[in-house]
Amino acid sequence: MEQPGAISELIDALKRLPGIGPRAAQRISYQLLSGDRSDATRLGRALLEAVDCVHKCPRCNSLTDKDLCIFCSSPNRDDSQLCIVETVADLMVIEQSLSYNGRYFVLQGRLSPLNGIGPHEIGLDKLIQRTAEDSLKEVIIATSFTAEGEATALAITDLLTKHHPQLRLTRIAKGVPAGAELEYTDVNTVAQAMLNRRVREL
Amino acid sequence: MEQPGAISELIDALKRLPGIGPRAAQRISYQLLSGDRSDATRLGRALLEAVDCVHKCPRCNSLTDKDLCIFCSSPNRDDSQLCIVETVADLMVIEQSLSYNGRYFVLQGRLSPLNGIGPHEIGLDKLIQRTAEDSLKEVIIATSFTAEGEATALAITDLLTKHHPQLRLTRIAKGVPAGAELEYTDVNTVAQAMLNRRVREL
Repeated sequence: MEQPGAISELIDALKRLPGIGPRAAQRISYQLLSGDRSDATRLGRALLEAVDCVHKCPRCNSLTDKDLCIFCSSPNRDDSQLCIVETVADLMVIEQSLSYNGRYFVLQGRLSPLNGIGPHEIGLDKLIQRTAEDSLKEVIIATSFTAEGEATALAITDLLTKHHPQLRLTRIAKGVPAGAELEYTDVNTVAQAMLNRRVREL
Repeated sequence: MEQPGAISELIDALKRLPGIGPRAAQRISYQLLSGDRSDATRLGRALLEAVDCVHKCPRCNSLTDKDLCIFCSSPNRDDSQLCIVETVADLMVIEQSLSYNGRYFVLQGRLSPLNGIGPHEIGLDKLIQRTAEDSLKEVIIATSFTAEGEATALAITDLLTKHHPQLRLTRIAKGVPAGAELEYTDVNTVAQAMLNRRVREL
């Protein structure tokens, strides 16, 4: 369908965002351009500004507009723990859970040999250097419980056991999610939750 | 949680989009800023470009980057029909249905007296002028079947009957949606579908 070029281009650009389909892209475009356009201007400027000044933290690969990110530069975080995640979004979820106060290392995705994504592509070389520091005692592997996430966890375990055998390697727990009903939870998860059961502390 | 200002600002701007919550805004931001940033740059430029050159069509209120929109300026559309919709997104859905080839008039929303949105605010004055043209024979009211959309349809019917009694006024059909099962359709819709039943043509 013919449409003004500037609107088509906006819809096409919105469609490329994760989780936004053609219909949502259309709806968002018309809403942004109807009435007050300050939201559109604000988002446009925010995007260009962020592209301009945000870069990867050279130490952990998370995002920052400083030399080092807030997680690497903060003096209040525990140097003895390093949590490995697949993406910055995963890192932020852990932060929001308020359950961790160590350092982070963000992989460049997860192993996917069929797509040509191997240990080098996801930054495991850099991880081996990062984990060579003396202050580090424990590495927590927080990749997802998908086939690729598990393969990545296994590769990290292999590599770190070989290069830094003194480190304590741990993996986040697999189990029944908070709020979930057992009846609707898959049996693999239930089996893991049973195996990983803990003594109830009063 | 502290974050680089440019990322926070991007997340805040994304959260203002319809249908995008805090978690999706965060996920989209990190994905746009990880790896190749060309999608972020493209969207940022598309937004500023669209804000700059897209404006309301003075005749029908839809969006255009020309003097008149493609629906008003096309010589191939039927001047005898005018379809009234609440938003440009509604107009596009009708276009995509390939069921209509007349002209359009886009209201500035729908009547909502409790929120101070009356006939003047949604542009009914302008509609009365627009429907004064001699070539026009039928006005199709395609507002939504919500309380406010129905109130708007009623107000339009009242006004046009008074100002232009020669016009044929119609309303799009209310009925059971394509693909829907009767069992799961609300009784009001089923009742309307029964009342609006048509002779089956072979």
